[in-house]
Amino acid sequence: TTVLQIRKVHMESVRKINVANFMAQPITPIETLEASNDIRVRMELMIMKIQHDFVRALEGEENFGKKFKVDRWERNEGGGGITCVIEGGDTFEKGGVNVSVVQGMLPPGAVQQMRARGKKLGDGELPFFAAGISCVIHPRNPYVPTIHFNYRYFELVEDDGSKMWWFGGGTDLTPYYYYEDDAEHFHKTLKEACDVHDKKFYPKYKKWCDDYFTITHRNETRGIGGIFFDDVDSPSLEECFQFVQTCAESVKPSYIPIVRKHKNDNYGDRERTWQLIRRGRYVEFNLIYDRGTKFGLYTPGSRVESILMSLPTLARWEYMHEPEPDTDEANLLKVTRNPVDWVSKLSS
Amino acid sequence: TTVLQIRKVHMESVRKINVANFMAQPITPIETLEASNDIRVRMELMIMKIQHDFVRALEGEENFGKKFKVDRWERNEGGGGITCVIEGGDTFEKGGVNVSVVQGMLPPGAVQQMRARGKKLGDGELPFFAAGISCVIHPRNPYVPTIHFNYRYFELVEDDGSKMWWFGGGTDLTPYYYYEDDAEHFHKTLKEACDVHDKKFYPKYKKWCDDYFTITHRNETRGIGGIFFDDVDSPSLEECFQFVQTCAESVKPSYIPIVRKHKNDNYGDRERTWQLIRRGRYVEFNLIYDRGTKFGLYTPGSRVESILMSLPTLARWEYMHEPEPDTDEANLLKVTRNPVDWVSKLSS
Repeated sequence: TTVLQIRKVHMESVRKINVANFMAQPITPIETLEASNDIRVRMELMIMKIQHDFVRALEGEENFGKKFKVDRWERNEGGGGITCVIEGGDTFEKGGVNVSVVQGMLPPGAVQQMRARGKKLGDGELPFFAAGISCVIHPRNPYVPTIHFNYRYFELVEDDGSKMWWFGGGTDLTPYYYYEDDAEHFHKTLKEACDVHDKKFYPKYKKWCDDYFTITHRNETRGIGGIFFDDVDSPSLEECFQFVQTCAESVKPSYIPIVRKHKNDNYGDRERTWQLIRRGRYVEFNLIYDRGTKFGLYTPGSRVESILMSLPTLARWEYMHEPEPDTDEANLLKVTRNPVDWVSKLSS
Repeated sequence: TTVLQIRKVHMESVRKINVANFMAQPITPIETLEASNDIRVRMELMIMKIQHDFVRALEGEENFGKKFKVDRWERNEGGGGITCVIEGGDTFEKGGVNVSVVQGMLPPGAVQQMRARGKKLGDGELPFFAAGISCVIHPRNPYVPTIHFNYRYFELVEDDGSKMWWFGGGTDLTPYYYYEDDAEHFHKTLKEACDVHDKKFYPKYKKWCDDYFTITHRNETRGIGGIFFDDVDSPSLEECFQFVQTCAESVKPSYIPIVRKHKNDNYGDRERTWQLIRRGRYVEFNLIYDRGTKFGLYTPGSRVESILMSLPTLARWEYMHEPEPDTDEANLLKVTRNPVDWVSKLSS
């Protein structure tokens, strides 16, 4: 396809890295990045670019010039990351776009978690490499949804010396009020990105997303879903990488138009209170169920502030809260209790 | 000792149950309660009385007559509970005092969790009985600490028909500002309760509490500790019950004087913001580490609203928040990073 051909030509022409296109100096030394075309290098450059482009696009939606704060950090055990955080913006109350490129030994606890999801692995600690981007944006206006995305590449060396690799990731939206046209725009953008690679991807990963982002004890999804996948390792390393790159590039067009449309909508106490109650649910999901958060918090030497930047500035809990029937708030709950069948809707 | 003798005489004299001394009709029918002196019955009556006395004592600290809301609920699978909740009080922003008396089959997941902490149990589901009281109170004034306590009795019938039983529980305090005299009063009250039964209990259960209420990823304790124990099953059922009852009775005198002392203290935005940040930590502990919360949320048919009433009305997260050195806020953190050795302090 054309997109992929253009990208290939572009890749080959890139020899010099321009740090001005990134939020900070990359984690891997520039000379190493320029000298190699290894998947680790390509992944690092890709997520650095996505981070930069998305951060700048978000800053473009701030009405009074608020900027992200950039923290570059290194890890004693190897690698590091670049955490970009915005707090107290006019459009974005809190948000983070975080890149990390880390290697070292995966502790037995983390290995066990991977075994639990079906990976055939030994008992002890294993050498690993991981590069990924993760992001959560909590806007101030209750009519603008929260977005989360995460794209990552993982390598493990097994006891017998063989290397395992896979990609994982996804993008999902958590509105406080449900607008069907926004939801359609969001899902359509993700579907088109998936369809470039395989028509089977969107239906499969849309369902995986609904299943994953379920707050089991509430019998609700976190939001209106999107796509989610893990352990993707076929048909080839190259095709997997291309797919993940297309997904990551689709985040900006899936979200920014929705921000622009609603960021200056009028709202009052009622909408703010509801937003904070839904943010309480977001906290419940992230701290109780989210695999990435748990994996991070249980991994020694992980950077807690970069993991927990996903939490909103404020969250609210009220005993037995239930919106009045037939209100906009009840309407959102309906959607989280019965996810919309976007596969049929977008195909018809 | 005198306390225990008086209690024994009192127990024998009680034949008629007066529901006016409880927050609601007990879960077990009155006739069953009046006809038996079984440990299950004694535990239910004890926790009902503690609930009533503590709720009324808290209501006594409300300056404008705010009362707890009482929800009596039944469980399809057997048993039920009484949830008392206060929200938007003048003194208490949010709080719950919950009693539950439940029986049924413990699902394999829950059995496995118990095995993980050293119980020798079979693979399948097992018949169980549990009666307990649990409480979290979040005051509005940042100078008044949050209190949590929980006392419970558990029975399991093993595959070979033999019955296992044990008690668990604890009381712990989470101040937002550290007052040494309040902390001393609190720990001294718990120590005196423990000492009635065994001088070894307080040192042992004080340490257990510090270890349990640790927010590992923050390298902080949740608050200033208290006492915590589980799997208590010796020297005898009677002595264990008496010990747990004394602990439960010590909650009121350990806490109410501190509430009364500080509930009308002046405070401003700075103190409120700090309180909400510490409440964020409380949420992190409860959702990530707390065994009771996890056990509850993973048990089918549990009452989610009664479990999550422990969460504060509002919680706050700021990226990389750290108080200025030598402030009252920094002083609290110091104590959560190096728990005070109350055993030595109170003995000297």
